[in-house]
Amino acid sequence: MKPTIEWADGKVVMIDQRRLPLEEVYVECGTVEEVARAIETMVIRGAPAIGVAAAMGVALGVSALKPSADLTTEFSKIVKRLERTRPTARNLFWALERMDRVFRESRPLPLADLKARLVEEALEIEREDEAICRRIGTNGADLVKDGDSVLTHCNAGGLATAGYGTAVGVIRSAWEAGKKVRVLVDETRPFLQGARLTAWELEKIGVPYRVIADNMAGWLMQRGEVSLAVVGADRIARNGDTANKIGTYTVAVLCRENAIPFYVAAPISTFDFSLSDGSGIPIEERPAAEVREVNGRLIVPPAAAVRNPAFDVTPARFITAIVTEEGIVRPPFERSLDALRGRS
Amino acid sequence: MKPTIEWADGKVVMIDQRRLPLEEVYVECGTVEEVARAIETMVIRGAPAIGVAAAMGVALGVSALKPSADLTTEFSKIVKRLERTRPTARNLFWALERMDRVFRESRPLPLADLKARLVEEALEIEREDEAICRRIGTNGADLVKDGDSVLTHCNAGGLATAGYGTAVGVIRSAWEAGKKVRVLVDETRPFLQGARLTAWELEKIGVPYRVIADNMAGWLMQRGEVSLAVVGADRIARNGDTANKIGTYTVAVLCRENAIPFYVAAPISTFDFSLSDGSGIPIEERPAAEVREVNGRLIVPPAAAVRNPAFDVTPARFITAIVTEEGIVRPPFERSLDALRGRS
Repeated sequence: MKPTIEWADGKVVMIDQRRLPLEEVYVECGTVEEVARAIETMVIRGAPAIGVAAAMGVALGVSALKPSADLTTEFSKIVKRLERTRPTARNLFWALERMDRVFRESRPLPLADLKARLVEEALEIEREDEAICRRIGTNGADLVKDGDSVLTHCNAGGLATAGYGTAVGVIRSAWEAGKKVRVLVDETRPFLQGARLTAWELEKIGVPYRVIADNMAGWLMQRGEVSLAVVGADRIARNGDTANKIGTYTVAVLCRENAIPFYVAAPISTFDFSLSDGSGIPIEERPAAEVREVNGRLIVPPAAAVRNPAFDVTPARFITAIVTEEGIVRPPFERSLDALRGRS
Repeated sequence: MKPTIEWADGKVVMIDQRRLPLEEVYVECGTVEEVARAIETMVIRGAPAIGVAAAMGVALGVSALKPSADLTTEFSKIVKRLERTRPTARNLFWALERMDRVFRESRPLPLADLKARLVEEALEIEREDEAICRRIGTNGADLVKDGDSVLTHCNAGGLATAGYGTAVGVIRSAWEAGKKVRVLVDETRPFLQGARLTAWELEKIGVPYRVIADNMAGWLMQRGEVSLAVVGADRIARNGDTANKIGTYTVAVLCRENAIPFYVAAPISTFDFSLSDGSGIPIEERPAAEVREVNGRLIVPPAAAVRNPAFDVTPARFITAIVTEEGIVRPPFERSLDALRGRS
C-alpha cells in the first residue's frame, strides 16, 4: 500500500479517502487547483495531512511557473487558493506560512533552485510529520494501560497525517509496546471517518476494535466499558480549547460526566498561539449533501434542510491532557504551552 | 395517507417504516407470526405503536383459533411469541397483559364472542393511544415557548404511536397553538428514525425542522441554539430512570451541561412500576447489520465488528420533567409518580 500522500514524478498522489474502506483508489494531482479541490472534497483530510498536501500543492504550483512569471504575485495566488480550502485546520496555515518563509528566503535563487527548494521543504514537512507522530505515540503510550478499552472519534490515524497518526498513534504505540488494548471507534457521521478510515487502519495493524454509532459512546461509558478517550485536533488555542471533528465536544462532556480521562493528541503545528481561546476558531460548515446522503443515497425527505458544522470546540476544562511530540501538556494549559512554545 | 397501524378486514396493516421517507409502502400481516416479525424487523417501532401492534397480533391469533383448540394453551403461545419481539418497550408487555386480562374475563363466552371481544379491546387500545397522545401534547405544549428551538431524538411521533405522537405531540401541540417553533432532529443512527421518520412527519405537518447528525447536538447547545429537548420513552422505572432510544442519555447529559431543560413525554403505559430504578430495564442489542450498513450498503471494512445497543437509560437526575396524559410529573419522581399511579 502507498502512503496517504506522496510526491511522485512531479505529481501529488493521494489515496482517495472518500472511497475507503471498500476501494483503494489513488488520485493524482498535477496542479494547485487539483490539490485544492482534493482537500476541499476530502480526498485527503485530517489536519496534519492537509498541511502536507498544502505544502506539496505550493511546490506543485511553483514548479509550473515560467521564468517570465511575476513570482511573488503568482506565489501569493497559489497560497491564497490553498488557504481557502479548509478554514479550521491550523496545520494548513502553518504549512503555508512555512512554505512562504522558504519562498522568501530562496527568492534570490535561480528559478530551478527555488523550485527544488520548495519541493524539498514540502518533502521535509512530510517526513517530519511522520516522525512527530511517532514521538506523539511514544509520549502518549504511557496513558494507555494493558487491557484498556480506548474510545476514539473521527480518524486521527495514518490517513490523517503523513503516517502513523496522532490519536491512533498513541493507541498503536501502546499496542506495539505489548499492551492488550481494544478500541471503540465512533463511526463519526456525516463523513464516517471512524467507520470507514479508523476501522480500516486498525484492521490493517491488527488492533481489535468495534465500530459504534456516535450516540452509543455515552451508554458504554455509563456501563464502565470505556477506560479513556483519545482524539486528534484541528486547531488548539493558547488556553487549550480544542477544535476537532464535530462530536468531540460531546465525547469530552460524556467523559467528564463518567470520570473518564479525555486526551487530545496533536503536533505543535496544530496550536494557534494567536488565539487566546477557542471562540476565535473558524468552524467550517460543509455541504448539506454530506448529512442528507450516505453513499450517495438520500436518507431524509427530499426537501429536508440540515445543519453540517464540521467541527466543534471542546473547552480546555474538559481535557485531561494534550499529547504532543514534545511531551504531555497538562492544565493549566496556558502556562504549560508557554513553556513548550519556548522549547520548540 | 393511512394510519401507522390499522385493523382492516381481519388483517393488520402497517406502513413499512423501514422504507420511509422515500417510499410509502404498506405491509399486511395475516398471522401472529407476521405481526411478531414486523415488530422484530422494525416495520413498526416506537413503544406505544408496538403495544398496539401486539394487541392486534393477539386479536389476530385468537381469531384464527378453531373451536377444537385448547384456548388457554394457544393464547399463551400467542402472547409468548409477541413477548419475545422487543424486550425493552414496556408498552408491549402492558398491552399483552391487558389482552390477557380480557381473555381471562371473556374466556367463558362463546368463541365467536371471545374473538370479537379481543378485537374490540385491541381497537380500544389503539383509539385510547391516540387520545392519550393528544392529552400529552396539550399538557406539554406549555413547556414550549414561542420562538423556541426544540431538539428531539429518534421518532416519538405519529409513527411511534397510534397517531399524533408523544414528544412530537408536544411540539405539534405547541405549533397548533400558534407558537413559532423550529425543530432540530437528531438523525438517530443506526436506524435513522429521526432523519427518516421524524423529518417526514414534520414535513407533513409543516413544522420547520433541520436534521443533524447525532454528534452535532452538543455543539449547537453550546452555541445557544437549543431551547429545550423532548424525547419519548420505552420504559420508565418508578424513580424516573428512563430507557429510550440509544443516544438519549447523551442528549440529557449535554442538556444538563448546557442548562437546557430535558423533557420525556410518554403515556403512563410506559411506566414499569415493578422496577425501583433503571438498572433492571433489559436493553436490547440489535443485529450488527444495522450499524455495519446504511441503505443495505456496507460502511465499515467487511470484517469489522460493531456494537448495537438499541436503547440506553437516562438517570432520573437528568430529567427536568416527564409529560404524561395525566399531567406533568416533576422530581422527586418516585413521589409524583405514586400520586399519578393512584389517580390513573
